[in-house]
Amino acid sequence: MALSKTPYRGTRDFFPTEMRLRNYIFKKMAEVSELFAYEPYDGPLLEEVELYLAKSGEELINDQIYSFTDRGDRHVAIRPEMTPTVARMVAQIHREVAKPLRWYSIPNLMRYEKPQKGRLREFWQYNADIFGAGQYGEVEIIQMAVKLIQSFGATHEHFEVLINDRRFVDLVFTKLIGLEENLTKKLYKLVDKKNKMDPAKFSNEVKAITSDESKALIFEEFVSLISTGDITKFVTKYSADSLAEVAPLISLFEKFTEQGLAEYVKFDPSIVRGLDYYTGVVFEIFDKHPENRRAIAGGGSYANLLQIFNEPALEGVGIGLGEVPLKEFLHSHNLSPDFSKPELDYLVAYLVPEGEKPAMSLAQSLRESGHKVELYFGEAKPKKIFSYSEKKNFASVCFFGEEELKNDEVKVKDLKRRTEQTIKVKEFIEGKR
Amino acid sequence: MALSKTPYRGTRDFFPTEMRLRNYIFKKMAEVSELFAYEPYDGPLLEEVELYLAKSGEELINDQIYSFTDRGDRHVAIRPEMTPTVARMVAQIHREVAKPLRWYSIPNLMRYEKPQKGRLREFWQYNADIFGAGQYGEVEIIQMAVKLIQSFGATHEHFEVLINDRRFVDLVFTKLIGLEENLTKKLYKLVDKKNKMDPAKFSNEVKAITSDESKALIFEEFVSLISTGDITKFVTKYSADSLAEVAPLISLFEKFTEQGLAEYVKFDPSIVRGLDYYTGVVFEIFDKHPENRRAIAGGGSYANLLQIFNEPALEGVGIGLGEVPLKEFLHSHNLSPDFSKPELDYLVAYLVPEGEKPAMSLAQSLRESGHKVELYFGEAKPKKIFSYSEKKNFASVCFFGEEELKNDEVKVKDLKRRTEQTIKVKEFIEGKR
Repeated sequence: MALSKTPYRGTRDFFPTEMRLRNYIFKKMAEVSELFAYEPYDGPLLEEVELYLAKSGEELINDQIYSFTDRGDRHVAIRPEMTPTVARMVAQIHREVAKPLRWYSIPNLMRYEKPQKGRLREFWQYNADIFGAGQYGEVEIIQMAVKLIQSFGATHEHFEVLINDRRFVDLVFTKLIGLEENLTKKLYKLVDKKNKMDPAKFSNEVKAITSDESKALIFEEFVSLISTGDITKFVTKYSADSLAEVAPLISLFEKFTEQGLAEYVKFDPSIVRGLDYYTGVVFEIFDKHPENRRAIAGGGSYANLLQIFNEPALEGVGIGLGEVPLKEFLHSHNLSPDFSKPELDYLVAYLVPEGEKPAMSLAQSLRESGHKVELYFGEAKPKKIFSYSEKKNFASVCFFGEEELKNDEVKVKDLKRRTEQTIKVKEFIEGKR
Repeated sequence: MALSKTPYRGTRDFFPTEMRLRNYIFKKMAEVSELFAYEPYDGPLLEEVELYLAKSGEELINDQIYSFTDRGDRHVAIRPEMTPTVARMVAQIHREVAKPLRWYSIPNLMRYEKPQKGRLREFWQYNADIFGAGQYGEVEIIQMAVKLIQSFGATHEHFEVLINDRRFVDLVFTKLIGLEENLTKKLYKLVDKKNKMDPAKFSNEVKAITSDESKALIFEEFVSLISTGDITKFVTKYSADSLAEVAPLISLFEKFTEQGLAEYVKFDPSIVRGLDYYTGVVFEIFDKHPENRRAIAGGGSYANLLQIFNEPALEGVGIGLGEVPLKEFLHSHNLSPDFSKPELDYLVAYLVPEGEKPAMSLAQSLRESGHKVELYFGEAKPKKIFSYSEKKNFASVCFFGEEELKNDEVKVKDLKRRTEQTIKVKEFIEGKR
């Protein structure tokens, strides 16, 4: 029986068209990161499962991780996210290096998911983290993310950064509503799912957790807050002496305004980020397109990532941006360039067998000067050469006929301008074209 | 207990220094491939094990593959090589596209090996293949490989391409020595290990297989051939009417001479490539350094890769070049640039709190014009700023003191030339520097 030609479920074959798009996206990620002085890193494809048990959310470990036992009896997993790896790496060197530490990476990750729009089993994720920078780090990471998405031609009409602060949420849940730890966790999970739930059902589940009409009302008021002004009023109303605890969130928004980012950022109390390790500001970047309302990226601040390695605390801020939802975003706003054809400079061909050697030499010389050149193999009729060159998007075709060979010349046809010239090979190579 | 900070055995953490080297190498691979009009592609990290059973050598499947059963009961493997994937992809589209098809990729692969110098469990491998081009493809792939290694500053003093032809080997083993198929296979395996074996032991095992003194002598003569002239004499001596079968190998070397590659290529009868799928020319690129005599790359021609998908034959030529042996090669010849520090343009700092906003704005503007800029967080004394900037290799430091702020100016210190100027911020941004 013949083998299947399709890739494994939830993974992709990147043919040149898709690969050029991927390269274009990855190049922007690297370029923007380097403008902000972030340095590249990468870690192993496999990590011991223990690392994820210590750091990742339960769902990721129980349902989504690709884990197995290797031939040496180690229990390993294909990385489902990059944060545990970056924490492990930073734990090795953070005592010796100048801080802040700014790192970025674009790893391939795998999760066992039901493949659907914007979600696959194998995907790449841009990760950037800054360690040892406090609130400056939060400003910078979000500023850089905005700049990255702008670099694809998008503006505040296309996307927005929704921001919240876990310290504020904790204040509301534990002090203002007075929930115990296990109920706080339940409420976190519920809020995380808010936008995917029926409002009536959401409301009922909130009441079941708070089990008190007046507390449910405080919660309702909290999830309706839409600006930092609202936050101040809300906290003043219920616990004026807690204002200091929301000061970082308020000042963060002031910094964004100073940096001209006011049109991009928005307070949103429903952003809590399910994962356990965030301890401060959390955010998600959303597509504004009504038919593609989904998160492109998410991140936040964490204080205790190095603890599991017995290292002293080092605060960090990180962002993860998936290439799959990013492509959906670019697609939904028509921002994806056409990569269906390669960009090639010259097709070098010959009409008679004696042209082979000079054609090969010319191709070599043109490559030496940085041109993308294909050598047409074997002598061929002009008609065949031109029909081939059009399929492949060459800027020009050079060819050697009997006449040209006699005079050490080459005929060059510019396919864009539809012009043609016959020129001495030596002059052509020297750039007189 | 604290978790381990070391990566999984046989894999690596790429800290920025190592990552910059990796990026440098990958960039050359992509650039040289594109000069030859090769198009980028990639495939999935996981493939169904069946694909490798059909195509890869036994050793790879039995001892070295990372395979497991997924949650949906599919038997999958982390890719140990790229050729089966590229064959699967080409099988999907080869009927519709203009040929030759030129593709390259730089995938991460995994093999369960005992980690040692030049060999790890996770590694990246440059792969380039040309489909539908016959001997022209062989010339081009080897020419491109030479150009790639040259692009790192290496010459024929540092490396060589050792070439053989499986059709010639088959001729010698089956026709000249007269071995049956199973003995031919045994002899192939033995020749593959020749350079790692004690000569006497090798000789004995050859005799055991050929079981005939005169046949063993033919074999001895074969493995001593060192030029294409020798080949012609050798074949003429034992089977003059078989000369046509070595004509492709002879003409391949003529083409290399025409292309100025004579100093790089060498006939070597001991190169046979263990893997099953090669059917024509085979080659390996060797480091010439006496202390690092190992293969950096290998490849060859194959005729039947699409068969397992029930597709008509499409001849191809491929090369695989591992980043681990390439780095050993660059290292052995001192060709590896120093990537220990990042290359950064500006550190922007401020001496007083009021400098924060203009410093942030200046950093933004400098990034707009493509500069790599770090913002120094928080006001600081000049001494602290300069000691920091030296650790991180900035070209210049810009800073705002009280005096500069008053006059809308910024002080810029060029750290390479050791010069300093105070300039209007606006003029500085406009590039008058």
